[in-house]
Amino acid sequence: MQINMNIENFMRRAIELAELGSGYVNPNPLVGAVLVKEGKIIAEAYHERFGEPHAEALALQRAGKAATDADLYVNWEPCISYPGKRTPACVDQIISSGIRRIIVATSDPTPEVNGKGIQHLRKAGIEVIGGILENEAKRLNEIRAKFAVTGRPFVLLKMAMTADGKIATRTGDSQWVSSGESLKLAHRLRVRYAAVLVGIGTVLHDDPQLTVRKVKGRDPIRIVLDSKGQIPLSARLFYLESQAPTIIATCCMSSEKAEQIKKLKTKTPIEIWRLPEDSAGHVDLNALVNGLGERQIDSLLVEGGSGIAAAFLQQRLLDKLTFIIAPKLLGGESAPTPIGGQGIASMAKAISLKEPAVRMLGNDVVYEAAVDYASSEGQ
Amino acid sequence: MQINMNIENFMRRAIELAELGSGYVNPNPLVGAVLVKEGKIIAEAYHERFGEPHAEALALQRAGKAATDADLYVNWEPCISYPGKRTPACVDQIISSGIRRIIVATSDPTPEVNGKGIQHLRKAGIEVIGGILENEAKRLNEIRAKFAVTGRPFVLLKMAMTADGKIATRTGDSQWVSSGESLKLAHRLRVRYAAVLVGIGTVLHDDPQLTVRKVKGRDPIRIVLDSKGQIPLSARLFYLESQAPTIIATCCMSSEKAEQIKKLKTKTPIEIWRLPEDSAGHVDLNALVNGLGERQIDSLLVEGGSGIAAAFLQQRLLDKLTFIIAPKLLGGESAPTPIGGQGIASMAKAISLKEPAVRMLGNDVVYEAAVDYASSEGQ
Repeated sequence: MQINMNIENFMRRAIELAELGSGYVNPNPLVGAVLVKEGKIIAEAYHERFGEPHAEALALQRAGKAATDADLYVNWEPCISYPGKRTPACVDQIISSGIRRIIVATSDPTPEVNGKGIQHLRKAGIEVIGGILENEAKRLNEIRAKFAVTGRPFVLLKMAMTADGKIATRTGDSQWVSSGESLKLAHRLRVRYAAVLVGIGTVLHDDPQLTVRKVKGRDPIRIVLDSKGQIPLSARLFYLESQAPTIIATCCMSSEKAEQIKKLKTKTPIEIWRLPEDSAGHVDLNALVNGLGERQIDSLLVEGGSGIAAAFLQQRLLDKLTFIIAPKLLGGESAPTPIGGQGIASMAKAISLKEPAVRMLGNDVVYEAAVDYASSEGQ
Repeated sequence: MQINMNIENFMRRAIELAELGSGYVNPNPLVGAVLVKEGKIIAEAYHERFGEPHAEALALQRAGKAATDADLYVNWEPCISYPGKRTPACVDQIISSGIRRIIVATSDPTPEVNGKGIQHLRKAGIEVIGGILENEAKRLNEIRAKFAVTGRPFVLLKMAMTADGKIATRTGDSQWVSSGESLKLAHRLRVRYAAVLVGIGTVLHDDPQLTVRKVKGRDPIRIVLDSKGQIPLSARLFYLESQAPTIIATCCMSSEKAEQIKKLKTKTPIEIWRLPEDSAGHVDLNALVNGLGERQIDSLLVEGGSGIAAAFLQQRLLDKLTFIIAPKLLGGESAPTPIGGQGIASMAKAISLKEPAVRMLGNDVVYEAAVDYASSEGQ
C-alpha cells in the first residue's frame, strides 16, 4: 500500500512537471520525468519547448551517473526512432543510462510508437510498470492522442453561461457572465490550445483581442470565421502586438476587401485563408479543420458564439466541452444559449456526452465532458 | 478530536432519522432525536407525522429511566409552550427526564421560539452544546425556516436540462432529458414538498399526473396555473386515485367551464381557486402564494414550464433551484431553456445565486443554489 502511494505521488509529480510545458510543446505531448533512488527524487525535468530535448533525456542528463539503478517515472511512453523523427530516441538513452525500472502512466497512441517503446525497453531487460494514474495522463495529453492518430486538431468548445443556460442577455450583453477566477481559466485554455476561434458575430459585437492577459503564457493563433468578409479594418485583432498570427477564414470575402486587409500596417502577421464554401454559403468547417491539421495546429479552442458552436456540433467536429456555469439567472426566451442553430428535433437523437465531470471554481461551476458522437448515432 | 467526531456522527444520525419524516410532518420541521449514554445509542426517534409526538418526546419515552444522565442529540431547537401550540412543550419533558446535556444542531427561527428553548434548558441547569452540523441542519429545514418566519411557502424551481441549457427540443420533445436516477430524485422532491405546480402549457403538452410513483411516499397537492381555464375535462389530473387534491388556480376561467369541472365524477378532490388577475391577464402569483400559506402549505415545487419559471423569478418568489443537467447536447436557438419569459436585459442586473453546490447523480449533474434577490438588487 505504502509503495503504491509513493508510486502515485512520484507519477503525480511527473504530471505536474509535464503541465509546465503547456502551450510551448504543441504538437508534441506534455511530458514530465522524475528519477527516484531510495525513495528520493534525484533529478526531474519536463519537455519545455517544441524542438528542445525530451523530458526523459533531460532528467537522465541531469542525474548523470547517479541514474544507475534509479526508477524513472514518465507520464507518457518514451519515443523510439522512426523515419522522419527529429530528436534522438528516448528509449536508447534510457537503456544506456543504467536505470533499474521505468514507471509509465500511459502508452503513446501515435501509430509509429503505440507500445513499441515499452516493448523495446522490456526487451533490453528494464522492468516496466504501466498504467499508474493512466486516466489523468490520458486526459493531460488528449490533444496529442487525437492529433497523432487523425492528423486533425482536438476541438474544445468553451462557453460561460448562467445557471439557466444563457451566454448573454436577450440584448446581447455578455460582460461578464463568469468570475475573475473563471476568466483566468479561459486564458489558461488559450495558452494550452494552439489556436482560438470565434465567429464574425463575436468580432462585430465584442471586438475581442483573443490574447492571453490574465495569466502568463504565449498567445494562441487567432482565427475568425468570416465567410462573407465582414470584419472591419479597425478590428483590434489586426493591431495586436502578438507573435501569433491572426487568420481570417473565409469562403466568400470580396477580393477588394482582401486587398484592403493585406495593405494594413500591422505588427502581428495577418493571413487570409480562402476555403471552400458549404451548401449554406459559409466556410466549410471540415476544410478549415483539415487545413489547421496540415499546418500542425493540434488543438482548437472554439469560444463562440452560439451559432458557431452549433455549426461545429452539427459537423461532428467537437471533441470536448468546458462550460463555466455562473451563479446567476437571466431568463429570456430569446437570450442566446451555448449552442444555437437549428438544433436537434428529437430528444432521443440528442448528442451524448461521456465522462461528465464537475468542479467548483469559486462560486462558478466548471462542467467538462467529451462529445460522444459514436454512441449518439446508435440512438 | 475523537469526541468531536463522535458528536458529529450522532448528530448525523439524528439528521438521518429526521429525514424519514419527509413529506408527513409539514408544516412542522423534520426532527430526529438520539439518546446516547457511555458512547452508545440507547434510544432514538423521529417526528413521524404531523400531529403525532415530537422526536425528543418519543426518544425520551422509549428510553424511560435510562435517560438519566444521557446526552440528547437533536437537529432542531426543542419547542417551548406558547399560545395556540398543540403539543406539550418538549423542553419541559427534557428537563424532567434527567438528561445530562443536550446537543442541538440549529435554533428554531420561529418567532415564538428562536433561542428561547435553549435558554430555558440552560436555566434549568442542562448543558447545551450548539452549532454541531449547523449548515446541514439548516438546509434540512430550510422550508420550515422560511414558512415559520414569513407564513409563505418555500418555493423550489426544479428543472431538467441538457448540458447546453435546453429543457426540450425546438419541437417541444422533453421525454426524457434526464436519467432514471434523476427521475427518482424528482419524485423524492414531490414527497418532500407539500404542493407541486405546473403551468397549463405543461398540462396541454404532457398531460402529467404529478403523483409520486418512482419512490415511496405520499402525493403532493397538485396545482395547475390555468389563468384562462383551458384545462381539458379529460386531463389525467382529474382522474387520479390520490388523496391529495388537485387545485386549478385561475383568474379568468369562465363560469361555464368551472361548472363543468365541478360536475366531473372524480376520486381525487378538485378545487378551483379563483384569484386576482395581474396586469398581464394571468393569475396574480403573489395572491396564489399567500393563499397557499394561509392553507398551511409550507412548500411549493415548481416543475415548469419555462414561462412559469420566468414569472416566479420575476415576481421574486423563488427561494431555491435544483437543476438536473443531463450529459446531452441539443442545440437550437428556439429550444426552450429552464427560464424563459422576457428575461433581464443587462448582465449586471442578473439575479444572483448563493451557495451553489453540485454533485454527480450517475452521469447527470445536480446543481443547487439559493436565489439571492437581496444582493441582486444592489447591482
